Amino acid sequence: MTTSFPMNAGDGLYSYSKNSHLQKEIIDGAKEMMRDVIIRKLDIKTILSSSNTLHITELGCSVGPNTFSSMQHIVEALKDKYLYQDQVIDSTKSTIPEFQIFFNDQVTNDFNTLFRSLPVDRFYYASGVPGSFHGRLFPSRSIHFAHCSTAIHWLSKIPKELLDKNSPAWNKGLIDYAGASNVEIVNAYVAQFERDMEMFFNARAEEIVPGGMMVLVTPISGYIRLLRFFGSSLMDMVNEGKLDEFLVDSFNLPLYLPSPQDMTKVVEKNGLFSIERMELINIKSNLVDEVDAKTLMMSLRSAIEGVIINHFGSKIAEEACARTILKSKEISEWMKVNYEKASILFVALKRK
Amino acid sequence: MTTSFPMNAGDGLYSYSKNSHLQKEIIDGAKEMMRDVIIRKLDIKTILSSSNTLHITELGCSVGPNTFSSMQHIVEALKDKYLYQDQVIDSTKSTIPEFQIFFNDQVTNDFNTLFRSLPVDRFYYASGVPGSFHGRLFPSRSIHFAHCSTAIHWLSKIPKELLDKNSPAWNKGLIDYAGASNVEIVNAYVAQFERDMEMFFNARAEEIVPGGMMVLVTPISGYIRLLRFFGSSLMDMVNEGKLDEFLVDSFNLPLYLPSPQDMTKVVEKNGLFSIERMELINIKSNLVDEVDAKTLMMSLRSAIEGVIINHFGSKIAEEACARTILKSKEISEWMKVNYEKASILFVALKRK
Repeated sequence: MTTSFPMNAGDGLYSYSKNSHLQKEIIDGAKEMMRDVIIRKLDIKTILSSSNTLHITELGCSVGPNTFSSMQHIVEALKDKYLYQDQVIDSTKSTIPEFQIFFNDQVTNDFNTLFRSLPVDRFYYASGVPGSFHGRLFPSRSIHFAHCSTAIHWLSKIPKELLDKNSPAWNKGLIDYAGASNVEIVNAYVAQFERDMEMFFNARAEEIVPGGMMVLVTPISGYIRLLRFFGSSLMDMVNEGKLDEFLVDSFNLPLYLPSPQDMTKVVEKNGLFSIERMELINIKSNLVDEVDAKTLMMSLRSAIEGVIINHFGSKIAEEACARTILKSKEISEWMKVNYEKASILFVALKRK
Repeated sequence: MTTSFPMNAGDGLYSYSKNSHLQKEIIDGAKEMMRDVIIRKLDIKTILSSSNTLHITELGCSVGPNTFSSMQHIVEALKDKYLYQDQVIDSTKSTIPEFQIFFNDQVTNDFNTLFRSLPVDRFYYASGVPGSFHGRLFPSRSIHFAHCSTAIHWLSKIPKELLDKNSPAWNKGLIDYAGASNVEIVNAYVAQFERDMEMFFNARAEEIVPGGMMVLVTPISGYIRLLRFFGSSLMDMVNEGKLDEFLVDSFNLPLYLPSPQDMTKVVEKNGLFSIERMELINIKSNLVDEVDAKTLMMSLRSAIEGVIINHFGSKIAEEACARTILKSKEISEWMKVNYEKASILFVALKRK
């Protein structure tokens, strides 16, 4: 069973494109660091040796506007690196490189909305690539720079032991691993993350040119705990007799937020990339007061509603989301205590 | 005013994906000739000199299934050419090339349906490229083979003299140039076609590698005359007082079906491509009996409904289409006399 639940499509009230504030904070938090690794660590001379076009991919792009902002930022950093690199490839070459960007997401992503909102004044050739980034997406050695923000924490599937009522990993009363008292549950999530990342790195290692770079950005800690509020809304409905408890017990969000240790382990086990920089960045969230707690929950809703609807049906999903938004005061109070824990993991890798 | 009316989206009753039989006949008619030019004319050694990946684009792909059939056919011909070419590039190289296909159409095309119907067992990496093929779509020298079937006859816009009531090119009572008594009308269409093709060739000349090829396939003669039946349905509605005649007079389908002479002229004027083969292919249409005349008109409807709705609104468009389908007996009789004139123009070009 492979999961494939894209962010909410279109540009309506609950769409991802209108509700991706949380992801925007994460991207903004990582921008300076990304520019810095491009300037300091990327050997643009080597990777541009056989072509004058830089191929960039955004893995798990979803729909705009965040992905366009990231891509513009990367293109600008690469241009600057090219123009100010000490050794210019060819002193007779006066033109800057061309850029071709491959926006990737699952085939169920709303590419129509993505394409229709492409910036008119972009300085790159745009294309969309449908498919799971856990498998191959591009020809061998065809990508110079890959970026993946708030996406690799989505697992390719829920490990089957979580779905077995007789397994010690049966996740009773919870919808994710945070707060699970049984270590078997966390272990099952970690093991799936490791399997997914092995597939991810093997595919990227074929696709990225030697010396090419990949930046991965994931939310850690704070964010996953916010999901408890969705879980508690579902349990409220169980307690009111509106929802079968078995449905909650058998539901598990397919996401795992890796720690720096998790990330180091999967990169080293794979062995095909070197870690050029890995850092936790504390971002001061603007989404901490009551009004913005609502915005934040709308943001989470636009990302996880698809997977909730798939399991519970749209009526239950709608009510659980509505009930969670009503908890914005409680969420806001919780966030004031916890927002400093809301940090992101930034990893810059280079293909050996 | 630029026109941008994609084929009908989705996969419903009037969708292009369910009604592209006419375009399929055209593609099938050109298949053997396309294979032949790849085998005889393409110097795969030269174009693969700096990479092991062949980049192919389908310009004006619309949605499936025709575009997938064409691409599979091209990939197979290229593979065979590679395997059986007298001089192999590198005798130590045992792997066949990889293929990356760029499906292009206007940004309003239904890429979601296209992506969701991609063949699972394809032997290529797929991507979608939104944008008008009258402008740049790809980086310089990045395309090895371009294919464009039943698409370049769509004009980028309606020439303004056709919209001027006081111009000799005012196209009273007709919706296209076929049957127009005034040569100014045909001239306006031809001039727009020439301007469009100049933009088209200039963009492709930048994108296609030297020695790379482009195959253009367009319907000629017979098909455009079928549109008269749409036009006469609209005029029936005028005569019944259901439609303002001015609306018909001011409407012109933005398409021009080039003759071999037209095509030769635009290629030679541009000067950046050599004509490797140009031929008229007579295809025996299977769509000539009464039942299939309906199929044929459904096919035309799925292609032109968007532009009709834009001008007349959906109510008038719906009625005009319905009335035209009712003429299937008349159409069928007309086709029995005229189908042998239903031929296609095949052009294979090579970037100098």
